[in-house]
This record gives sequence, C-alpha cells and structure tokens, in this order.
Amino acid sequence: MRIVVLSGGIGGAKFLVGVRAHAKAIGAEVTAVVNVGDDVRMHGLQICPDLDSVMYTLGGAHDRERGWGRVGETWVVKEELAAYGAEPSWFGLGDKDTATHLVRTQMLTAGYPLSQVTAALCDRWQPGVTILPATDDRLETHVVADVEGERKAIHFQEWWVRYRGDVPTHRFVFVGAEAAKPAPGVLDALATADVVLIAPSNPVVSIAPILAVGGLREALAGGKAPVVGLSPIIGDSPLRGMADKCLATIDVEVSAAAVGRLYGARANGGVLDGWLVDSSDAGAEVPGVTTRAVPLWMSSEETTAQMVADALALAGVA
Amino acid sequence: MRIVVLSGGIGGAKFLVGVRAHAKAIGAEVTAVVNVGDDVRMHGLQICPDLDSVMYTLGGAHDRERGWGRVGETWVVKEELAAYGAEPSWFGLGDKDTATHLVRTQMLTAGYPLSQVTAALCDRWQPGVTILPATDDRLETHVVADVEGERKAIHFQEWWVRYRGDVPTHRFVFVGAEAAKPAPGVLDALATADVVLIAPSNPVVSIAPILAVGGLREALAGGKAPVVGLSPIIGDSPLRGMADKCLATIDVEVSAAAVGRLYGARANGGVLDGWLVDSSDAGAEVPGVTTRAVPLWMSSEETTAQMVADALALAGVA
Repeated sequence: MRIVVLSGGIGGAKFLVGVRAHAKAIGAEVTAVVNVGDDVRMHGLQICPDLDSVMYTLGGAHDRERGWGRVGETWVVKEELAAYGAEPSWFGLGDKDTATHLVRTQMLTAGYPLSQVTAALCDRWQPGVTILPATDDRLETHVVADVEGERKAIHFQEWWVRYRGDVPTHRFVFVGAEAAKPAPGVLDALATADVVLIAPSNPVVSIAPILAVGGLREALAGGKAPVVGLSPIIGDSPLRGMADKCLATIDVEVSAAAVGRLYGARANGGVLDGWLVDSSDAGAEVPGVTTRAVPLWMSSEETTAQMVADALALAGVA
Repeated sequence: MRIVVLSGGIGGAKFLVGVRAHAKAIGAEVTAVVNVGDDVRMHGLQICPDLDSVMYTLGGAHDRERGWGRVGETWVVKEELAAYGAEPSWFGLGDKDTATHLVRTQMLTAGYPLSQVTAALCDRWQPGVTILPATDDRLETHVVADVEGERKAIHFQEWWVRYRGDVPTHRFVFVGAEAAKPAPGVLDALATADVVLIAPSNPVVSIAPILAVGGLREALAGGKAPVVGLSPIIGDSPLRGMADKCLATIDVEVSAAAVGRLYGARANGGVLDGWLVDSSDAGAEVPGVTTRAVPLWMSSEETTAQMVADALALAGVA
C-alpha cells in the first residue's frame, strides 16, 4: 500500500512517526509532501523549518521538550550574530541547525533543486519515509498585519516567531504559489497513492500553502485515492501552534467541524472524502464528508499509529 | 605620524599589536593592508583567514594558545558538517568564526565590497587600527604541487591546512592578481604614509600576494615614505608558519639576508629602504638596503613595540 501524507512541521512530524509505525506494521510505503511556505533565507542561509522538523523528528534527532529543532542544540552562532548586530536576532538559529542550512544553501547555490537537497540531507537521517517538498519553486507565506502602527506584509516566520501572531492580522498570502509547480515525485505519489492523509497540521499556514502549489489541489481532488483528513482541533482548541489565530484571521470558527468544512468535500470542490475528529468532537458534521470520532491525542507513537489505522479504515483501505 | 603596515595573518597580527602600542605612545595612526590570498569559500562561506586573524587579535578575541581563531571557540558546526559528509572536512570552521563568515558572506552577496564588510565587522572589534584588505577583487593564492601522484593547482588553504605543505611543491600562483585593484583607501594610505612597515610575515604567501595586486607594488616602490621590513627569519628559522617550505619552493635560502634580498632595494627595483634583522643575524647584507640588527622576538607587546620603535628609527622617522 502507498500512503501519501500532506504535512506541516512539528505536528505533522509527530503524526508521521505514527504513520511510519503503522506503515511498517502493514508493509506500506509512505511519502510525505511537506509545506515550504515557512521557508526563509536568514543570514544568507536557506531555512526550511517544516522539512527540517519532519527530517529531524523521523531521524530521532529532534528536541522533544522544546518541540522544535535539534536535541542537544547549542547557540554560539546565534549569540555571535547578535554580537555583530546582525538582524534578525529573533530567530532561533542553532549551531547544529546551522550546519544543515549550510549544506542546503550550498547545494541550492550549486543548482540542485530543493527536492534533491532534501534527499541528500535525508541520507544522513534515514527517516524511513520519502520526504518531498511540496514544490522546488519559491513559495513563501507572507502575512498582512498591522505592525508598529503600519499595515504591511511580513514573512510568516516574523509573524510567528517574532510577534507570536500577536498583532492585528488580516490575511495570508502564498507568494509564488501560482507559478510554483509540484516538486518532482509529488504528482506521481498522488497518482499512485492508495490513500492520502492530511496530517493534523495547521490548515491555514501548513496545509493551505501545499494545496496552493499550481496543480496540486487539482491532482488531489481529481485523484483516485481516497483523502482523509485528521482534525488539528480538539474540543475547540488547536493541538499546538496558533491555528486559532490563523483560523480567526480567515473567519473560520475554531472547531473540528469548521476546519472540516474549510477543507470541504471532494464532491463539492473540496479535498476530503473522510474527516477524522476527536472523540470529544463526535457529531461534527461536514457536508458530503464521512466523519468519524476516535481519540486524536498523539500522546505516544502507538496512539498515533492507531489514529493512522483509524484513518485508513475510514478511507476503506485498512 | 601615519604608519602603514603590510601584513599577513597570525604573525602580522601579533606585530600589529606592537605597532598599535607604539603608535599610541607617539600619537600615530596605523593602517594595516592585509593579505587576502588565503581567502577561500568553503561550505558557501567566504573565509578571510588573515583579515580575521588581524581583527580577532587586535580585538583581543584570538586564541593565544592555538595560535589562530577565536578564544573559547566551539566546533558544533564543523562536527555536524562532517556528519553530513560535507567536504572539505579538514578545515577548522569554528562556531564563533562561522558567525563572522555568515555576516561577511551575506554582506558580500548583498553587494558590499570586502573593504566595507571588513569595516562593518571591525565596528564590533574596535581594533584601533584601520584594517584594509589589499584588494576587494578576487585574488587567491594557489599552489602547484604533486598531490596523490598528480601535479595540480590547489588552493593555498588546502596546501597549508590539509597537507601541512608536506607535498612536492613547485610554485605559487596569485590567481586574479593582475586584474585586481588595490582596495579603496590602500593607495591613499600609501601616498600619505610617513613610513611603511613590512610585517615579519611570510614573504612568499603573505606579503607577495599583497605586492602582486595591480599597481600596489609600484605605489610602494615609488612612494615618498621610507619602507622598512622586519625579517620573519631569525637565525635560519622562520618565526612561525612554513616560511621555510615556501622559500625553498621559490629557491630562496632560509635566512634573514636572503629574504631581504628577495624584497630588494627600492633603488634596484625592490621595495625596501631598511631591513631589520634579529641580533643573531647581525651582519646580514642586502645590497642597497640599510640593515640593522635588534632583538626581533615578539615575546610580549612591549618587546614588539620596541621592534616598531627600532624600525621607525631605521626609517629615520622616529
């Protein structure tokens, strides 16, 4: 069986650990199509937060306590950059992470596309999952917000890390999305998938930028594989991150049902066949979409693998 | 008084500490014109070993025991790059150093010339000396050597750091030197100098690449300021580094007199008016050049400052 997962960073990475576990149990192959909208160039380094979260987590090298970045990380480079007064100083650039970005940036400068760079980095991490960027082309999520009395578009990382999303926010723009093409392997993976899962990632800034890549949403909506999403909202609260702030910005209620309706039914121009919500959200209705309520807390690899089993069952491919 | 010093890296940096001390005592201004032939791009970072040695040393941030790089340096980035299999693995890329290279590379990428980048970095280090690269243009010292059974041109850093100069070596080539122009400020500094000192740096791979910059040697040889060099050889031994291997490559004897003759008298198409040798080398003769023997061991800032006083006396400007 071939499983494709659309994924953001930290939450998606945690979900993918469960997908990998379940896939191993049933002999399935997994391809993760990962958001690149958070990608940003800082201090001359090309940083791909979501790809790195997925890679580090599946490679067992992530910091479980901090939630992002590398375990055992040190911060000498960041402190030195600050001592030079080099901006931005608000970004958490770890020393171990810096090496990843150096390798990536040098390969990109040499002309390799991001998908090949990612594969090369994964040679070290052996994630057990094929990790593909949604696109090799430039696609950056910018946020139109009121910052220091002025309405402007800032990079998602600045909104997220510097301002913690705590500024009046008007909309998200996926710069470059229309011209971007799916990375090599993405359309093939979707075309040959037996099931597509949408990870319980942020629907507005993790999954939406993936779907915004030219032709990707159409390939998903028109594909033969059933598509099942997992709600990132449990009992009106986001699992993590700032999905509530993001949803409020686009006037969507913070609830499992509302996010399901945001994705919508394939039959109605959306992307979902099935929508898995938490037991506490039983009864959530999404027109045209089969919903099912199961425990959705990713408290362990086992419980997450069970979520995956439940999603495959909902898709009818278990 | 205006003092200009032609300088390589570690030895030149140590010398400049003494120049700064003596200049402070007599109210003089110091400009260091620093070799860039060692500069190299590694892991996408533009690394300027000599400029950094001078900057760190005058900034009091150098590692006195190791002799190069930053005191309190850590090596996380280097270890991580090695874990990725990223070459070259033989170069000592410290974490603190990495931040310097990131700031430099980003500024260069943004279009600033190396001289302005250096000035910006020096804002932090307050070296008390104007530090100028010999040129803003590309100038790299390559070494024609027999490496693994094959004669090829390798970058100076590879010859120096990877092979410790321990390969059959045929010649040094200053790639780009003819087309390179002196960096802004260099010709002005030479034109308005009251005295020019040639630091006891490696004559073959530190001073020669400076003199190879288009027009620089002519400006020095034709300038009004007296030029005094300090011998990097004491009693047939180089002060440090591998001046002996470098001199052997160009068929010059390892002696204070021979290096003085290599530089030559201004009257005979060379660059020297005076040549300061160590007491143990008293009697060294360089045709057309006034030589004087004084203690040349840079064992402390005070002894080094005394060497500078002696050099200025020899130049007749003390």
